[in-house]
Amino acid sequence: MRHEHGGNIYKHKNIIDFSANINPLGIHEDIKKAFIKSLEMAHNYPDPDCVEIRELLSIKEKVDSKNIICSNGAAEIIFAVCFAFKPKRALLCAPCFAEYEQALKVCGCDIERHILKEENCFKPDNDFIYDINNFDIMFFTNPNNPTGILSDVNYIEKIIKRAVQNNIIVVFDECFIDFIENKYMYSAKKFINQYDNIIILNAFTKFYSIPGLRLGYAVFSDSEKAYKVRECIQTWNVSVTAQYAGVAALKIDNSFDSDTIKYISKEKEYLLKNIKPIKLYGHSANFIFFKENERFGNEMLRRGIMIRDCSNYYSLGKGFYRIAVKTHEDNKRLVDIWENLIYSKKEI
Amino acid sequence: MRHEHGGNIYKHKNIIDFSANINPLGIHEDIKKAFIKSLEMAHNYPDPDCVEIRELLSIKEKVDSKNIICSNGAAEIIFAVCFAFKPKRALLCAPCFAEYEQALKVCGCDIERHILKEENCFKPDNDFIYDINNFDIMFFTNPNNPTGILSDVNYIEKIIKRAVQNNIIVVFDECFIDFIENKYMYSAKKFINQYDNIIILNAFTKFYSIPGLRLGYAVFSDSEKAYKVRECIQTWNVSVTAQYAGVAALKIDNSFDSDTIKYISKEKEYLLKNIKPIKLYGHSANFIFFKENERFGNEMLRRGIMIRDCSNYYSLGKGFYRIAVKTHEDNKRLVDIWENLIYSKKEI
Repeated sequence: MRHEHGGNIYKHKNIIDFSANINPLGIHEDIKKAFIKSLEMAHNYPDPDCVEIRELLSIKEKVDSKNIICSNGAAEIIFAVCFAFKPKRALLCAPCFAEYEQALKVCGCDIERHILKEENCFKPDNDFIYDINNFDIMFFTNPNNPTGILSDVNYIEKIIKRAVQNNIIVVFDECFIDFIENKYMYSAKKFINQYDNIIILNAFTKFYSIPGLRLGYAVFSDSEKAYKVRECIQTWNVSVTAQYAGVAALKIDNSFDSDTIKYISKEKEYLLKNIKPIKLYGHSANFIFFKENERFGNEMLRRGIMIRDCSNYYSLGKGFYRIAVKTHEDNKRLVDIWENLIYSKKEI
Repeated sequence: MRHEHGGNIYKHKNIIDFSANINPLGIHEDIKKAFIKSLEMAHNYPDPDCVEIRELLSIKEKVDSKNIICSNGAAEIIFAVCFAFKPKRALLCAPCFAEYEQALKVCGCDIERHILKEENCFKPDNDFIYDINNFDIMFFTNPNNPTGILSDVNYIEKIIKRAVQNNIIVVFDECFIDFIENKYMYSAKKFINQYDNIIILNAFTKFYSIPGLRLGYAVFSDSEKAYKVRECIQTWNVSVTAQYAGVAALKIDNSFDSDTIKYISKEKEYLLKNIKPIKLYGHSANFIFFKENERFGNEMLRRGIMIRDCSNYYSLGKGFYRIAVKTHEDNKRLVDIWENLIYSKKEI
């Protein structure tokens, strides 16, 4: 059974979608122009090697382009990694992004889960490090989705060292890290040249607000692993349009990054001040994780607000929710509806 | 080592590309409009279920939408089929499309090849039917690429029956069949409800001239097999833009089909009358397969015409080439350059 993710606006029309965590600044004008321009080239096959994006990423990420592969969204690489290394035993945190499980399952891999404890606000600790033992692969999301918990480089290095000792490939999913101020204090990138068992996933999806175009990438500490994963993916996996968009995105000046972080910080503060969930959890990135009553999600949906009901995440019960930080207008609407909902309940 | 396909215009700039077989009528206006329109939705995740395209395809192909999956180009499904069924032994014709081998190899599948004989103009015959025995899966391309040979429903049914007897999944790759007049006389579609071991691949790529947007699909005789293959692919595999383009393509009226077939027929006639290769082979679809001297491909490339050097296809030696049927202007240019080349050689 396929996991029901957030962001499926096709099942619920005319709603404000707080269930997908996309940059509220929207698609940058340069990306829009590149999108339009790409139509002139759409009658050609895409570049199978994504040469231009990989060269720009090589400069940005300070690794050789041989160590980078591009993909039809980061999710494609999750599957390809599993197909390439055919792991027999995998370690996941719970809760975590559901595509890891889906990819591991179709490979016939056994999955063991380290349950992140609610009483620790879902923060991974030394117990998790001890649990890293007899596995072939592990996935670690930083900041974690849906919990919003961010781990720093000290913790990340502990994971890597323990994985090296046990000959485990570690896939760090950093698809939300670009929303973090001083991300270099948290990213596994710091260790990419130091250890050879690291794969880091990232996406253009969230930060550049183009989930519909499908563009992700992975940086490998070992270029042979990159080659092996690329071999498990068809030749023309990244569309001409996604490649144009990606190149444009990588040429946008840095002010877009700081504007985004500033905007989200301000709006997150607004939301945190005005929402009153039963319990508030992590919110390091562009989304907020919290607990509310079991009917809350449906009540909001009935009022035109789609939030992410997280009860289908492994280890989470009912009543866990995630909302994206959106534009002020949208956020205000959410706050108003939420307040009304509480008010109307009191009336009852 | 990844196979070098045709259509890599990124390695050779400022050439006319005869190496990719794309509809010379170009991208239909309705698809262009849909492309532009899709930008408004690019900040959303695509529909994971491709509901709208699959419903339209269900009507067109007269099968339940449960039996259809959509993909990031047909090539994605080739890999997913291999990952889903984990075949141990596969049968291919040689020459054939190289992605089958790539996908089977990364699955650790042994490949046996039935060599199509040059002296039979690469036409598969009863020897091939006898060779269908102890396999888990087989791929059969109709019309075949690069040979241009078309097999009719009588032959196709022989393949299916023999495959059923031997419990083999047959993947018919019909990515070029829309270019064939009265395609129903050749397509395995006729048998989709009659036998349960059939998978038929098709693509929007060639006929709608959108290889850069990536959109393919497969029709399964067995919906459980469709489900199993879909499970091996990430959730959001078809971009918003490809879905918009696909829906628009399926709503174009039939005159586009007949105009395309008429145009290609006329231009193919023009090319066949004016090119004088050493030996001419199949040309049932929108491309022509032939033999010329070993340097021919490079000589043409030096003169700005990129043709498909087929010497890297398994079983083909040097001197085999494939050209697409393009616009009259392009075709005339090819003919002129070809004639000049022959003339200049005579001079030497």
